[in-house]
Amino acid sequence: MELRTVLVVGTGLIGTSAALALRKHGVRVLLADRDQGAVRLARELGAGEEWVLGSPAAEGVDLAVIAVPPAHVASELLELQRHDVARFYTDVASVKAEPIDRATQLGCDLTTYVASHPLAGREKSGPGAARHDLFLGRPWALCPTQEARPDAKAAVLKLIELCGANPVEVSAGEHDRAVAVVSHAPHVTASAVAARLADATDVALGLAGQGVRDVTRIAGSDPGLWLGILSGNAAPVAEVLEAVAHDLAEAASALRALAEGDGTATGELTQLLKRGVAGRERIPGKHGGPASAYAVVQVVIGDRPGQLARLFQVCDEVGVNVEDVRLEHAPGLPLGIAELSVQPDAAAPLIDALRERGWQVP
Amino acid sequence: MELRTVLVVGTGLIGTSAALALRKHGVRVLLADRDQGAVRLARELGAGEEWVLGSPAAEGVDLAVIAVPPAHVASELLELQRHDVARFYTDVASVKAEPIDRATQLGCDLTTYVASHPLAGREKSGPGAARHDLFLGRPWALCPTQEARPDAKAAVLKLIELCGANPVEVSAGEHDRAVAVVSHAPHVTASAVAARLADATDVALGLAGQGVRDVTRIAGSDPGLWLGILSGNAAPVAEVLEAVAHDLAEAASALRALAEGDGTATGELTQLLKRGVAGRERIPGKHGGPASAYAVVQVVIGDRPGQLARLFQVCDEVGVNVEDVRLEHAPGLPLGIAELSVQPDAAAPLIDALRERGWQVP
Repeated sequence: MELRTVLVVGTGLIGTSAALALRKHGVRVLLADRDQGAVRLARELGAGEEWVLGSPAAEGVDLAVIAVPPAHVASELLELQRHDVARFYTDVASVKAEPIDRATQLGCDLTTYVASHPLAGREKSGPGAARHDLFLGRPWALCPTQEARPDAKAAVLKLIELCGANPVEVSAGEHDRAVAVVSHAPHVTASAVAARLADATDVALGLAGQGVRDVTRIAGSDPGLWLGILSGNAAPVAEVLEAVAHDLAEAASALRALAEGDGTATGELTQLLKRGVAGRERIPGKHGGPASAYAVVQVVIGDRPGQLARLFQVCDEVGVNVEDVRLEHAPGLPLGIAELSVQPDAAAPLIDALRERGWQVP
Repeated sequence: MELRTVLVVGTGLIGTSAALALRKHGVRVLLADRDQGAVRLARELGAGEEWVLGSPAAEGVDLAVIAVPPAHVASELLELQRHDVARFYTDVASVKAEPIDRATQLGCDLTTYVASHPLAGREKSGPGAARHDLFLGRPWALCPTQEARPDAKAAVLKLIELCGANPVEVSAGEHDRAVAVVSHAPHVTASAVAARLADATDVALGLAGQGVRDVTRIAGSDPGLWLGILSGNAAPVAEVLEAVAHDLAEAASALRALAEGDGTATGELTQLLKRGVAGRERIPGKHGGPASAYAVVQVVIGDRPGQLARLFQVCDEVGVNVEDVRLEHAPGLPLGIAELSVQPDAAAPLIDALRERGWQVP
């Protein structure tokens, strides 16, 4: 299946990023959005040519990518199909069962439509935040219904391939339950932890370390956008949140009993902590493979230009590949620790090389 | 107040790190631990001289640092005071009210004892993980009671100064409520989210992104260690967990109603997401100052030795200080994005310089 011309409806972060990826492969891209500013910005960024919604169908559009909020996918699909705008259709919304159900209710043609969802995003939104490599190596779910024609699915697989993503075929229901567990419910939970900080004392905030920063990072995202996502996946997210709330209430109750001298319930608390360790270990590591145990080399660095350049220069000289890097800052001081993750057998030679050159490796 | 000789009781991560910091300043350090292996390893690491618990008091010990689990602090203090081992005493346990209450009950001398807690740690434990700069720039709470003599407090302040930490004077109760909010309850919550992953499908894990990785990172820590910490701060942690569980149950109930067509409860869900944003914004930024808005420059890098060295070399040439760096990997592909946080006015010149040199800056 070749894609020569693709129409992108909705030039936000996801739509424009897909358009940029397609342009890199020489695909002709038409851009449409109800927001004239958004579509113009996308065009100026080199994402394609402007096309006005409702104008006569362009020649030979192989695929229309509907990149609008979940609640508007089905009506947009209906409208585009009415005007016979493209041979095939997909959408990229982060929930899947609801748009497909709605499309069925509205009487859309399900033979030419395959719903999909790229697992990629940024904390920023809009065409200005788009980038052609947003989907590189990311999972991209596709959820063909029984009605879908094989060539409709092939068109969507081609889109995924051109965007550099990994296709994951999954039913809409399974998709929605999966993202509830790995994305939507964790988001609400991070918000609930961060909400406690809103009422906390300045002293408490002054004692905040890296742990709470990590737990609450995603809670900084746009509430309006997230309300839309959660609303579109309401039942699966509710189910996960109920389980998390139940576990936390049980933990609280065990701790209450303990505070009153009854230590019999700590077994459940230990079980929760252990199940957490087990769940954490199931998250796949870098490059989609199993989580691997890198060695971590810690180096004291000053907060001045050039320190990191010199540090990575040493790694380069010794031929050590840095798999990951994390800067841990010392609050209140212009000093920090760089934590370099390297293959276990590379750690000792790297430490020696750094120490020889006068680096502080504690 | 000068510290010439300090006794460290308990040569785990915290005790040995404090000993190493004191040694850097030429302080004589005596090391004791019920575990002979731990104390020997600490000695071999240069943390000080071995001292056997229960042997006659050494000459002129200015301060004894009790670095044992929270439940054993008071009995250890009583024992040391009975033998008149040191002029002053502190502990470094991560909860404060319980050890002080217990010390009072046991009839310890509260005039020479000031409880404290350095807010520092690592995911590893034991003397082998110790480092002299563990406390550099970190908050270090101290909780003097009304009975404490001013020179006892001065001795603990000197310890904090020699370890390079920032003293934060706070009552034991306020300390415990603070760490419940910023450390202990977030930990249990991360465990509860990670516990859902233990039961999730492989498909779900395959769709996991950076968000859930961040939320669950601290859930990988040692359950036994954490059970001790949570048990020692049971009531304050229970209170925070009850509030988080309540918010999550409300969110779940709003989503259940929504799934059945009743959208009236989404207002509360939006409020929770907004309170999360507000709480997140209160976390102090780098160097203990207010969270500042750095510009983030994203650069595509290959997963080969030398790429980061060359990247930071460019930053150095342009005189741009990288405030933070984050590697975002593309699962399944040997490619990634380096996100460099820089001062806002440094972003444009850095991007130009990188592009000129052929870097892909999307």
